[in-house]
Amino acid sequence: MVANIDPFHAIAISREAHRLEAEGRSILHMEFGQPSTGAPSAAIAQAHAVLDSDPMGYWESPALKERIALHYRERYGVTVDAEQILLTCGASPGLVLALTSLFAPGARVATARPGYVAYRNTLKALYLEPLEVDCGPAERYQIGAAALEALEPAPDGAIIASPANPTGTIIPADEMARIAETCRARGIRIVSDEIYHGLSYGDPARSMLEFAPDAVIVNSFSKYFSMAGWRLGWVVFPPDLIDTARARMGNLFLTPPSLAQHAGLKAFDCIDELEGHVATYRRNRELLLAALPALGLREIAPPDGAFYIYADVGHLTDDSLAFCQKLLRNTGVATAPGIDFDPVDGHRHIRFSFAVSTDRVEDAIARMIPWFKAQAIASKKGIF
Amino acid sequence: MVANIDPFHAIAISREAHRLEAEGRSILHMEFGQPSTGAPSAAIAQAHAVLDSDPMGYWESPALKERIALHYRERYGVTVDAEQILLTCGASPGLVLALTSLFAPGARVATARPGYVAYRNTLKALYLEPLEVDCGPAERYQIGAAALEALEPAPDGAIIASPANPTGTIIPADEMARIAETCRARGIRIVSDEIYHGLSYGDPARSMLEFAPDAVIVNSFSKYFSMAGWRLGWVVFPPDLIDTARARMGNLFLTPPSLAQHAGLKAFDCIDELEGHVATYRRNRELLLAALPALGLREIAPPDGAFYIYADVGHLTDDSLAFCQKLLRNTGVATAPGIDFDPVDGHRHIRFSFAVSTDRVEDAIARMIPWFKAQAIASKKGIF
Repeated sequence: MVANIDPFHAIAISREAHRLEAEGRSILHMEFGQPSTGAPSAAIAQAHAVLDSDPMGYWESPALKERIALHYRERYGVTVDAEQILLTCGASPGLVLALTSLFAPGARVATARPGYVAYRNTLKALYLEPLEVDCGPAERYQIGAAALEALEPAPDGAIIASPANPTGTIIPADEMARIAETCRARGIRIVSDEIYHGLSYGDPARSMLEFAPDAVIVNSFSKYFSMAGWRLGWVVFPPDLIDTARARMGNLFLTPPSLAQHAGLKAFDCIDELEGHVATYRRNRELLLAALPALGLREIAPPDGAFYIYADVGHLTDDSLAFCQKLLRNTGVATAPGIDFDPVDGHRHIRFSFAVSTDRVEDAIARMIPWFKAQAIASKKGIF
Repeated sequence: MVANIDPFHAIAISREAHRLEAEGRSILHMEFGQPSTGAPSAAIAQAHAVLDSDPMGYWESPALKERIALHYRERYGVTVDAEQILLTCGASPGLVLALTSLFAPGARVATARPGYVAYRNTLKALYLEPLEVDCGPAERYQIGAAALEALEPAPDGAIIASPANPTGTIIPADEMARIAETCRARGIRIVSDEIYHGLSYGDPARSMLEFAPDAVIVNSFSKYFSMAGWRLGWVVFPPDLIDTARARMGNLFLTPPSLAQHAGLKAFDCIDELEGHVATYRRNRELLLAALPALGLREIAPPDGAFYIYADVGHLTDDSLAFCQKLLRNTGVATAPGIDFDPVDGHRHIRFSFAVSTDRVEDAIARMIPWFKAQAIASKKGIF
């Protein structure tokens, strides 16, 4: 029998949302972590030009690898050779590439709970053992050096995510250094998911490469660069792993989309436009945080980065999937149920993505306030 | 330790070919199985339109799934529900999706040798056991019902490829029926790689779905549809596997490129243009077959379909990689070494891809005839 893994429940919510939209309902899509904006305009212009001039065979862009290597020097002050970078069809296959290059079946890999749905499921699909470490408010929902020190025996690997999904929390630099030191001492291989880098509202996130040069880094153009549907990501491997990883890339995936590589290279020249999106997310975040009291939501994870609010709705429900379905049906606001991120406590959480336009966030808040008040009254647990 | 898998050596040949090209050398790229033509013009026009109108988030095209389902009814007379189809970032991750949905580590999966490099390597990377069945001229280089009957114990699965890579051979309908019957009787799950369908020079290839409704079918837009760099493929699963496969798709891969899905849908309306490419391949194939005596190549696999000639060069070399490197350096003709496809006998074979323009095939033949004659004289084995 193959491993039994969970579906991504937000996909079912989204399908229902699109079905309702097709019926004429007004839907506010806050269920997925994807910008509602498109690729930067210069990237789109480049795509038009390439469409008319290039037959687009299997291809890896040397220039894009060089540009990403430069990005590590400029942004983080770390030296990465372009040959250490493999371009992938997004971060999801990037994680598969990282995990299959590092670990054999039975390997134990620590992850934070709550955490991104695909960590647990991809580990299980590859017959690796997810060690889910319960991370609550005291740990700012992050797996830290203390937790990695306490696991006996030492795990083979750990997936670190800063900013994290679904919580948005960022690991401070001193804790990053402690995690790197603990993993070095205990022989734990680090996979650092840095897909939300560039999206922070206080101190910027640091790359694990600044602290652990042998970490494997997963990133993509889907979030900061606003190119989710282009399916382009990258993985940075340490030199001792690159041949192993390249053999897997060539056999399991071949190449990423050619057009996305051309456009992605241009996207690095569009920082002003992309920072405009970040300014929108910052406004949206403030609007949602200001609305929390009116929604009766008191416990949320600190949204340091990314574009999510992960909120405790345990006073209203113990079935977050049913709660999200009802919220969608009654108000048209689509959200993701906590069970995608936390099989233990996720039944009492939901995740809002605020990677939409500000008027949609305002509309969502306006629709949700009376609905949440009604839920609180109906549940007889509310304090309105 | 993670599984040790081979690199795809043709990639190294191609890198060297591009390096020589950058130095100003005239290179004829016959190393990869990719059309030198671009996507059909209506598909490109559609891509232009979508680029200007759609922000392109994570997306699966319902219309494209319906169109592919219709294709199975029209082309093969088999009924496939659109919900049985998953869209992938090409056939390579499609094969990963198929294998991880069907098999757990340790499962034994039969493949033909010679066969496509990624079958053996992807199986090994997923800790499945490749059972390579030696298939020579007597078997037309294909694994057949007799071989599947003879394996003891019965394997868990078999990868069938018709037309095959590197040989181009097609399995006749009666043998397809016998393979299906043997696999049904012995409980062998069939993965049928149909990526070269549409490219045949005699009888068209039949789909395994016509004979085994529970087969898993892998296909893509990279070959017949001439859209290799767009990275779009699909997998057809039987109803009992679709939930298992969908959970893997959402976690391991998420979605295929949005633009490619829009363009791919239009490509189904461009059959005249695509059949023009097939006519070119047909001419190229005839030119190469006619040139074989002058090249001193007497043993080739019957190229029923696809766009390859797989030739025995054992009278000239016992190191096909070095042979391809020398051929490239001396003549500028890039080819793939047989060791990619056959670890046992591949040292004495090379593969020519004729998915290029006819003038390039003519140029390649003109360059190769004196070179092959010189090799034959130098090897003292030639009969010129």
